[in-house]
Amino acid sequence: MNWNITAPDGTLAVAIAHKIDTKTKPLGALGQLEALARQVALVQQTLAPMLRQPHVLVFAADHGIAAAGVSQYPPEVTHQMVRNFAGGGAAINVFCRQNGLGLTIVDAGVRGSFADLPAVRDEKIAEGTQNFAQGPAMTAAQCAEALARGARLADELHAASTNVLGMGEMGIGNTSSAAVLMHLLTGRPLAECVGRGTGLDAAGLVRKLAVLTQAVGAHPALDAADPLAVLATFGGFEIAQMAGALLRAAEHRMLLLIDGFIASAALLVAARLAPKILSYCVFCHESDEQGHRLLLAELGGQPLLRLGLRLGEGTGCALAYPLVQAAVNFLNDMASFESAGVSNDSGK
Amino acid sequence: MNWNITAPDGTLAVAIAHKIDTKTKPLGALGQLEALARQVALVQQTLAPMLRQPHVLVFAADHGIAAAGVSQYPPEVTHQMVRNFAGGGAAINVFCRQNGLGLTIVDAGVRGSFADLPAVRDEKIAEGTQNFAQGPAMTAAQCAEALARGARLADELHAASTNVLGMGEMGIGNTSSAAVLMHLLTGRPLAECVGRGTGLDAAGLVRKLAVLTQAVGAHPALDAADPLAVLATFGGFEIAQMAGALLRAAEHRMLLLIDGFIASAALLVAARLAPKILSYCVFCHESDEQGHRLLLAELGGQPLLRLGLRLGEGTGCALAYPLVQAAVNFLNDMASFESAGVSNDSGK
Repeated sequence: MNWNITAPDGTLAVAIAHKIDTKTKPLGALGQLEALARQVALVQQTLAPMLRQPHVLVFAADHGIAAAGVSQYPPEVTHQMVRNFAGGGAAINVFCRQNGLGLTIVDAGVRGSFADLPAVRDEKIAEGTQNFAQGPAMTAAQCAEALARGARLADELHAASTNVLGMGEMGIGNTSSAAVLMHLLTGRPLAECVGRGTGLDAAGLVRKLAVLTQAVGAHPALDAADPLAVLATFGGFEIAQMAGALLRAAEHRMLLLIDGFIASAALLVAARLAPKILSYCVFCHESDEQGHRLLLAELGGQPLLRLGLRLGEGTGCALAYPLVQAAVNFLNDMASFESAGVSNDSGK
Repeated sequence: MNWNITAPDGTLAVAIAHKIDTKTKPLGALGQLEALARQVALVQQTLAPMLRQPHVLVFAADHGIAAAGVSQYPPEVTHQMVRNFAGGGAAINVFCRQNGLGLTIVDAGVRGSFADLPAVRDEKIAEGTQNFAQGPAMTAAQCAEALARGARLADELHAASTNVLGMGEMGIGNTSSAAVLMHLLTGRPLAECVGRGTGLDAAGLVRKLAVLTQAVGAHPALDAADPLAVLATFGGFEIAQMAGALLRAAEHRMLLLIDGFIASAALLVAARLAPKILSYCVFCHESDEQGHRLLLAELGGQPLLRLGLRLGEGTGCALAYPLVQAAVNFLNDMASFESAGVSNDSGK
């Protein structure tokens, strides 16, 4: 698949900066919100951007590597949490309801059926990935299918007028997958990429690092310069679908809300395939997961929130969304010095 | 005036922690929102807190010290910005509208009349303070009156069912006032407390520090251990009214949203009069103003946002409010492991 992603045209940048700088506030006084307003205006190619039908996609999948004891929770929790999402009881449900974001729960590859739950979108590739300590997590065909299914979801939302899209995930074991992707695609030592996930203790972290070190060593022929090969070998179905959705959404010039460590790893894969995708990304939250700070630096992202969250599900996107609204609203609704009759004689 | 502020009873703490820890998420995975939920529940003495009629009071006043050239903007901007607030065109208007907070603009002591603007609440003590480089900013009687007027505003909001109150300010020259208050009430060197305000350049900052150093030296008989004397000598009418409103609101056990540097200086005065007020405070934003980080550390505050804002007006409160809602909402609305049928077998 080729991805047709170009950076937004920069012609409007001067006019956007002028509009921001003549608002009734000291120059630069809205800090990071000003950079965000500039970005949204450029992405939408207008001085009066609008956020339409904001939506969060939560991709869930199981991971073969979970059998190796890399998580504090048993694999069944992935399935159970999807049921909780469908019932409206998880954190992401609460935060999307509060802030007016739509929410779709996607079964990208969870063990067990959700046929009884129409609210769960069936995009199941398989009943979880294979254990990448022993072989590739998925086949190349499964990986391509996952990207395509994610892309199709972005197409549907685009057709339904969504122009701002957040993504989250659920999958016991997926910080392991994300850590290896980060290690191979950035070249950073694995120990810097591996963290405590849902709450491993020090001994658990040592074991996780040992398991992943062994797993990376088990694929000596892998070409780390090939993002799709890396994704197929160590990824998860939720990560691959997220990458596909991100890429297609950027083709549609949507604003992309990036959540925590796993979502950032999916974006890393996407950015290796189409680097200009980063122009469309708003980094919502710096997670408490070790490695995320480094991964954000790698992606050039400055997060809006740093609340010590380590939950995933897209919660960072839903919590940061009002700040994105605030950036758009001040740009559209604040008075200018001239219109308000306020002196802008700042002595310069 | 005596302030009757006690810390919330801690008896409920165990039950609150249990409720948070049985939500469908890894232990502690909502980070700072969990601490916030605990605080709100304790302040309201319930396992099911509610935020009612959230409101922001913006206090405006002029400062005699502005004549000494400590700000980048001319003093008339205070009056002009109050007119902008009344017209709905300032950042605080936009953010309060977005996030559903009520807003009252208070003329605590601005030069010129707002008789033509019924939306501006007249609590004017005088047409600005005196220049504290030459004498006390206000008399002891004016200071007491300002505290009482601020307290009365908190009484009115309490009577109108508000239980969460943010405060902001506008006043050309007021970072100078706040810096001196911080210096005298914390003992930190003045140079650590003085910053660029609305955007002074390096030379402007040097001049501001020199003016304030001279001004502090001009009051050799001042007892720095007497918060009210310090407030009267170097404060502003907006800072004094804010301090009074904060103290009375804490007596009413409201949740207090603390904005940036000036609001934190008002809180510092309040905390020197009634230290338990800090139990009621949510620190909304770490401002870009030098000194605010140190002042937050002094007050024991961990800010919810760090967006590089340096605008005041209560904008940090209005922007952080959805995070306070999120803390309350997850506590009330998330499913528990038991109710959702999710395994909490985390191997412990």
